[in-house]
Amino acid sequence: MSLRRPYLMFLGTAPDQLAAKTAQGIVHWRPDWCLGQLRLPGCKADLGIKDMTIAEAEKAGVKTVIVGVANRGGLLDESWIPGLVEALERGMDLASGLHKRLSDVPALKAAADKLGRQLADVRHPTREFSVGNGKKRRGKRLLAVGTDCSIGKMYTTLALEAEMKRRGLKADFRATGQTGIFIAGDGVSIDAVVSDFVSGAVEWLSPENDADHWDLIEGQGSLFHASYAGVSLGLLHGAQPDALVMCHEPTRAHMRGLPHYKLPDLQACIDANIAAARLTNPNVKLVGFSINTSALDAAASERYLKETAVKFALPAVDPLRTGVGPIVDQLLL
Amino acid sequence: MSLRRPYLMFLGTAPDQLAAKTAQGIVHWRPDWCLGQLRLPGCKADLGIKDMTIAEAEKAGVKTVIVGVANRGGLLDESWIPGLVEALERGMDLASGLHKRLSDVPALKAAADKLGRQLADVRHPTREFSVGNGKKRRGKRLLAVGTDCSIGKMYTTLALEAEMKRRGLKADFRATGQTGIFIAGDGVSIDAVVSDFVSGAVEWLSPENDADHWDLIEGQGSLFHASYAGVSLGLLHGAQPDALVMCHEPTRAHMRGLPHYKLPDLQACIDANIAAARLTNPNVKLVGFSINTSALDAAASERYLKETAVKFALPAVDPLRTGVGPIVDQLLL
Repeated sequence: MSLRRPYLMFLGTAPDQLAAKTAQGIVHWRPDWCLGQLRLPGCKADLGIKDMTIAEAEKAGVKTVIVGVANRGGLLDESWIPGLVEALERGMDLASGLHKRLSDVPALKAAADKLGRQLADVRHPTREFSVGNGKKRRGKRLLAVGTDCSIGKMYTTLALEAEMKRRGLKADFRATGQTGIFIAGDGVSIDAVVSDFVSGAVEWLSPENDADHWDLIEGQGSLFHASYAGVSLGLLHGAQPDALVMCHEPTRAHMRGLPHYKLPDLQACIDANIAAARLTNPNVKLVGFSINTSALDAAASERYLKETAVKFALPAVDPLRTGVGPIVDQLLL
Repeated sequence: MSLRRPYLMFLGTAPDQLAAKTAQGIVHWRPDWCLGQLRLPGCKADLGIKDMTIAEAEKAGVKTVIVGVANRGGLLDESWIPGLVEALERGMDLASGLHKRLSDVPALKAAADKLGRQLADVRHPTREFSVGNGKKRRGKRLLAVGTDCSIGKMYTTLALEAEMKRRGLKADFRATGQTGIFIAGDGVSIDAVVSDFVSGAVEWLSPENDADHWDLIEGQGSLFHASYAGVSLGLLHGAQPDALVMCHEPTRAHMRGLPHYKLPDLQACIDANIAAARLTNPNVKLVGFSINTSALDAAASERYLKETAVKFALPAVDPLRTGVGPIVDQLLL
């Protein structure tokens, strides 16, 4: 699957900023590819880039419209369809990370077929996977885990990849979600894999490699998320991580999408992840914390990171504020 | 999906007796429906019922050939196809619990279409599910969990259903695997559900009910199985069990399909299941042990059950040898 660039980020009627996580991630890591955003009435998200109509996007040279909004369950809103059809009519392809396939929407399928445009559904695996075998593979693996969904696991692994490459180390980001796939150019959208094959898909995604090579595997969900914990556990077992980074957002009031569930205690979350990871890699270690402190001011952020680092005697960083250097240092100890 | 009866159990080239778990379960719980078995050269399984050719099955009045062999990963062997085509030609339908769809095998699809026969793939969900919401539902739920796959979870829940109905209690078996679906007539093959929706599918399978009604939910896999633990965890969270029954086979040398993995310690397995189950039901309790002691003689079986019951101060039964009465007693305390 290869997407034509540059992109227009289609935000539809995104109900809040977190719902535009996909689009925001792409803009952050590939700013040069993202010429503008399109927001429909009622949209509550903003990527901080130029607002464009479909007509303006055509004039600016956009080649692919990215449906960059992740609803719970991955549905496509009816109100988005006219704009997406117009994009096809004006010569652009569509790409989406939703569960619902663009090609399953009759109006989009008909227009794309008639006009010869590409409908790319990056969330849908295009190959079959084997059942996981749990056999040890050569090479090193790091997995980002977390207390909740949408808490910075992808940002963390991408930042680690950038920092490790800057230091001349062998490292590759391994994408397990739609945003990561848009950014990496390949990967497996692990929550769209049939449940029996989740561990096997991660084993495939992170194959045997040089002994000093690090795969930096994007985590998904949380062992403490009542909707998705099974995905997280299959991913954890398939990854066979040597190193875990714990991702957290200290001000979040409840689990994403579940107002009746509180976030787990950090120590309980570490213990559960280490205990589960030991099944396929008894040598797994926690190497640090990646904290999303965007809701804290600079002083409070610094205090929280310091307290966490002292409490657990491990590096605690905010990838956006401090970089991830201390975690790479820890990894190489 | 409704299957015409009676059945012929097609065992193909099953490499061992455990591979015929599906067929064996149907024969055990619905003996009157199963007129015979068909074994190809090399087949190492035996259901202890009459061997039949396809022609003999036709004469005996068989209406559906059940592909009752579960390979790892659910593949259909090429060598089975001629016999299955012959069955279609002789007027029988086919039903399968494999991942690989009968309707994806060109020779079977073509013959079934031409002859007007049914190809029933019970492993493939025929509806879409929502993401799990983790909300408490009225009614009581019991889930069978285990130290490994293929260890008696379905047998246990079916035996509990029979015993509870005998006592006039409100109870329903909820099938989560192909064998259970063949026996119950409906259910969801949970390991074929896209991973994001596993918990939601179990919430759908076991909806709100009378306060004194028990859903007896068939477990799958094990939290300690490197291939399938994610399936088990999603199922556990969606089930929101009030009661867990721990299933175990005391003589098994390694995890099913994974010679390099030993079975977990019973206490560790209990602790992990209780800790995980508390996320969606803080009041979850272990109510007993269901031990498959088929590899032990009567005296050794009795000794093992007694030791387990004393060690954990809970009932320990073998559903086939002792019945499950003591677990129902414990459930009603």
